[in-house]
Amino acid sequence: MANNEKNRIITTIYGQEYTIVGSEPTDHLKKVAQIVDSKMHEIGAQNRALDSGRLAVLTAVNMTHDYLLLLEKYRELEARLENS
Amino acid sequence: MANNEKNRIITTIYGQEYTIVGSEPTDHLKKVAQIVDSKMHEIGAQNRALDSGRLAVLTAVNMTHDYLLLLEKYRELEARLENS
Repeated sequence: MANNEKNRIITTIYGQEYTIVGSEPTDHLKKVAQIVDSKMHEIGAQNRALDSGRLAVLTAVNMTHDYLLLLEKYRELEARLENS
Repeated sequence: MANNEKNRIITTIYGQEYTIVGSEPTDHLKKVAQIVDSKMHEIGAQNRALDSGRLAVLTAVNMTHDYLLLLEKYRELEARLENS
């Protein structure tokens, strides 16, 4: 693929336009953007007083939390696989 | 633990104070906040023109991307474990 194998999408997250660039297929990039948009709306609905910048930080916190929990589960599976 | 088994930390992410609440130990909550703070600084250093709100959204995008890649690897391990 051209452009150093990068894909690029223009997408709207929480009402603002972003260009997302990555080496993954555009479907993956779109899915990432949709998850962030939907999490921001979900967290925003529970915290109506938050400005969008703080809301985005809490969305990043939320995703990082999910990532760490999944990483723990991943390592458990790895250990089980080594012992099987 | 009191308070419906919730833990709470007050932490600084990208120069702003946040209260993070969760059922995990405070060490986990601190680690989450540190990862988000460090990712925001990393992405901010590469995109100096971004305001902090857009930077936080891109940090959430970044973490969601990492989450989806890890989820794919997790499902591969699960499939291998089922077949082993």
